[in-house]
Amino acid sequence: MELAAIFHRPESEDAFLHTDGRFYIRLRTKKADVLKAYLLGGDPYLFDTEKWWQQQRPMTKIAETLTHDYWEISVEPPFSRWQYGFVLENNDETIFYGDRGCFPVSERVLTYSNYYFRMPFLHEQDAFKAPEWASDTRWYQIFPERFANGQPELSPANVKEWSQESPTTSAFYGGDLQGIINHLDYLEELGINGLYFTPIFKAPTNHKYDTEDYFTIDSHFGNDETFQLLVDEAHRRGMRIMLDAVFNHIGDLSPQWQDVVKNEEKSKYKDWFHVHSFPVREGENGNIENETTLSFDTFSFTIHMPKLNTANPEVQDYLISIATYWVEKFGIDAWRLDVANEVDHQFWKKLNAALTAVRPDIYILGEIWHSAQRWLEGDEFHATMNYPYIETINDYFIDRSIDEETLISGLNTQLMMYRKATTSVMFNMLDSHDTARVLSRMDNDTQRLKQLLAFVFTQKGTPCIYYGTEVGLDGFNDPDCRKCMIWDETKQDQDLLTFTKSLMAFRKEYNHTIQEGELQWLPSTSESITFSLRENETTLYCIFNRATMEQDIAVPTLPKSAQPIFGSGERHGQKIRIKTNDFIIFKDQ
Amino acid sequence: MELAAIFHRPESEDAFLHTDGRFYIRLRTKKADVLKAYLLGGDPYLFDTEKWWQQQRPMTKIAETLTHDYWEISVEPPFSRWQYGFVLENNDETIFYGDRGCFPVSERVLTYSNYYFRMPFLHEQDAFKAPEWASDTRWYQIFPERFANGQPELSPANVKEWSQESPTTSAFYGGDLQGIINHLDYLEELGINGLYFTPIFKAPTNHKYDTEDYFTIDSHFGNDETFQLLVDEAHRRGMRIMLDAVFNHIGDLSPQWQDVVKNEEKSKYKDWFHVHSFPVREGENGNIENETTLSFDTFSFTIHMPKLNTANPEVQDYLISIATYWVEKFGIDAWRLDVANEVDHQFWKKLNAALTAVRPDIYILGEIWHSAQRWLEGDEFHATMNYPYIETINDYFIDRSIDEETLISGLNTQLMMYRKATTSVMFNMLDSHDTARVLSRMDNDTQRLKQLLAFVFTQKGTPCIYYGTEVGLDGFNDPDCRKCMIWDETKQDQDLLTFTKSLMAFRKEYNHTIQEGELQWLPSTSESITFSLRENETTLYCIFNRATMEQDIAVPTLPKSAQPIFGSGERHGQKIRIKTNDFIIFKDQ
Repeated sequence: MELAAIFHRPESEDAFLHTDGRFYIRLRTKKADVLKAYLLGGDPYLFDTEKWWQQQRPMTKIAETLTHDYWEISVEPPFSRWQYGFVLENNDETIFYGDRGCFPVSERVLTYSNYYFRMPFLHEQDAFKAPEWASDTRWYQIFPERFANGQPELSPANVKEWSQESPTTSAFYGGDLQGIINHLDYLEELGINGLYFTPIFKAPTNHKYDTEDYFTIDSHFGNDETFQLLVDEAHRRGMRIMLDAVFNHIGDLSPQWQDVVKNEEKSKYKDWFHVHSFPVREGENGNIENETTLSFDTFSFTIHMPKLNTANPEVQDYLISIATYWVEKFGIDAWRLDVANEVDHQFWKKLNAALTAVRPDIYILGEIWHSAQRWLEGDEFHATMNYPYIETINDYFIDRSIDEETLISGLNTQLMMYRKATTSVMFNMLDSHDTARVLSRMDNDTQRLKQLLAFVFTQKGTPCIYYGTEVGLDGFNDPDCRKCMIWDETKQDQDLLTFTKSLMAFRKEYNHTIQEGELQWLPSTSESITFSLRENETTLYCIFNRATMEQDIAVPTLPKSAQPIFGSGERHGQKIRIKTNDFIIFKDQ
Repeated sequence: MELAAIFHRPESEDAFLHTDGRFYIRLRTKKADVLKAYLLGGDPYLFDTEKWWQQQRPMTKIAETLTHDYWEISVEPPFSRWQYGFVLENNDETIFYGDRGCFPVSERVLTYSNYYFRMPFLHEQDAFKAPEWASDTRWYQIFPERFANGQPELSPANVKEWSQESPTTSAFYGGDLQGIINHLDYLEELGINGLYFTPIFKAPTNHKYDTEDYFTIDSHFGNDETFQLLVDEAHRRGMRIMLDAVFNHIGDLSPQWQDVVKNEEKSKYKDWFHVHSFPVREGENGNIENETTLSFDTFSFTIHMPKLNTANPEVQDYLISIATYWVEKFGIDAWRLDVANEVDHQFWKKLNAALTAVRPDIYILGEIWHSAQRWLEGDEFHATMNYPYIETINDYFIDRSIDEETLISGLNTQLMMYRKATTSVMFNMLDSHDTARVLSRMDNDTQRLKQLLAFVFTQKGTPCIYYGTEVGLDGFNDPDCRKCMIWDETKQDQDLLTFTKSLMAFRKEYNHTIQEGELQWLPSTSESITFSLRENETTLYCIFNRATMEQDIAVPTLPKSAQPIFGSGERHGQKIRIKTNDFIIFKDQ
């Protein structure tokens, strides 16, 4: 047995209290190395009297990657405490694995209480909890400057004519909040129930990530009244509202930074930032845009975005007051936190405590592009933008750079990286204002886009589409991915729009099965991917043909009674004929 | 290469900011599998311009276990941010390992920024920090009821005569605070500089873990004035004071629990506990001592120790007010927290914040018998009672149940489990009021005890001796390990006492080298263990003979210039003749 590969971390994504009240335990072993895995477990204070270490509970292999097998079991500790170890078998040996490592199974090892792992006491307040609504959300991301112009009188003086031309970095097109309100019926009909807006606070740029005043709606977008109307109208339609907060840095035009620029070391705001030496004025002391000689910390190396010192209690109070203000005054439902990984954990914990105090069912989403276990322990964020998951999907469907085995391995690795409750609220966006649009990455092939959307919408996590995706809006990297929304119906891809509505309806109906169901990747034909999701009596079978031609995809385990419910393909016994880049979903119950 | 064994966890004990301002990165691979490990790293925003992924920084193999090699490197990120991956070489292949797993090295892999791990920004407030004094402490644990009777007038009515007979579970001998004060000169001469007392608050038992009133010194022990005198007198001698707090549960005689017993569901304290059903009165509703039918949560299954509901803000405020009271009013330096693992993390974070606010250099020690990574992230405890480390030492020296390779493996596993700053303040006690005394476990062989003490005192972490160890006090498991201290000099083992003083002086002089020096286990003769600790120009060589006979232990790397500084043995070239169960320490500089 490959002992060096055996891994379990107590009180982590490997050992957690789930919302169903059960304690889940996971274990990682080398791929195809261990034949059977068992849990030995019980109350620590009944170790000697109950001798529970004599009872082996079989674990289930729930995921495989290119390198590992993952095993899982859940238990319901009668006294909220649990002590446990593992027994692993293959043809060569039987190993005990616990808090002190691996040992050949022996009476001495099994009866030594200190050799076991501990979940000392299951505390509800330590458990990862996400608001219930979050896992049932179909998000729609809006870049407000480019969605719709509802109040032309608010538009900047140099506003350009609404069109799907490639925007420049600094262009303005006049999109605003009233524009969004005007199209809420459209969005409701589309079937989404969550709206995520990139920043709407006062800021000079069109993207508004360089906040000037966190308490004021940008005047080109509207005012408090328009925003309140937007929130209320969205809520009336059952849609949640998520705003975007930039707490890592502030815009250089903010009064706080301007005070430092003006008064330098005498500024009362000098400790709001990480200033290494004064002066901080542009052009002096190495402070030149994009140079590595800056005398203060910034986002990347831009002098326009000085980094906030979130260890300073004044800054903490200020930022927390912003976060609670928009929740308490306007009733927003969620915050997306920009550059969340570069802010300290202690601040995020305080923000989480403050937000959940004013609104227990708030959803907090961090922008983190890499694996994010440290932020997802339960007291910082509920989810992160799930780039690692989505990039793996895009590698397979868009770039075609990986095969089925690697796709499954990559997705399983990510699924095993977080607790179950985390996974179901991870933010699965295919593209965003920060990336090229997937349609453009697939040469504007809408059939491929449909297939890709269908795949993401059958995955655990909350799917998000970027505005315009549903009508064929394209665009390469920023700023090209920020084109104006297509409202001219003759220019909208009506077929894609119809498809997207069906997709939303499908996800709505089967959300619970997708989120809570047992996922199983099924063996199938090359250049195709098949998996099932089983919850109680219902099983979905999802089959995707990535081949550049129609093919007959073998699904040996598809029951005769399964009925097609979405997508298209012809069933011939245990084979399904699916066109190139198409998919079909069957349901059996 | 065994890819399944390669492991690194970002923002953990594998990736941390140390007190020297450097960022340490560790990596685990299968034992003897990887020949060279390199770090690729740099600022995330200079990935494309600096192409720092072209530069390989060699890592050092710092530890080996039976199953793994551990590699380490430290860097000083110029802009506080660090993005990194690993390149691993053996004779067969070269592998890149990063955030998305392992890949054969290729231009595509190396240049894909998202494949790298991230330390997004090094925040001082997220770093693990322990008070400076803690790593330079030689602790002495006192069980106050059995140390010395300084005020016979305070003793319980049924007090027994002071003697080294085996105590019963309920016996009282009259030890008190004045007794400790009377012997502070003795302790100072012994060379310790930290005193840890098991509970001293009002409680009915002799061990006082069933607290009745956390704000009152038990009347058999003294009063506020005696305690203040003890703290002041200890401080005057440069000794720190650590008290023991039981926050997991409270004594059943406490007014809070008594109120619940009296008023049941109408008690204003009913939410201070985890009551599943009323009544809670003894004898009713399954509430029988040591039965698993209790209707409320307790410590283990004892109705005398109802578990506190630390999720209740009233309970939190109450316990925090206790913790800060003894620090603020009396100036104690540290808290040892009983059954710390069964209390929720959120409460410990709050307690940590409150205590460090009133006293930034407080030391917080948790009683946790198993591996404790989750509690040692920096915002809960500074250290835990290091049972896993000590038990491995005891397995080798006391039980002789493991060989050198297994000893080294066990110790290295524990050393790699925590950040460097954590390891140096871990609480290394050989025995305690909860275990048999090591002297008894070694058949009262004081030569073996000396060797064992010397080994622990050359280990990283803060050593602690249990009262009486230095004069040959023995005792098996509780209550036998709680015998009265020997004050009759004719009964004290004077040779052992002299040795212990030398040991304390040795540790005091070489503490920094032991704590900060580079540890290397050296190949040596069977039934012996040899290691070096190198800091700058100074290297200590520590050699222990576990054989039941004198033997010549080969230390090929011992420099000619090294001089013996402690212990005994005869050097003959590269061999050291050491008596059975003896040791010698050389110093070279």
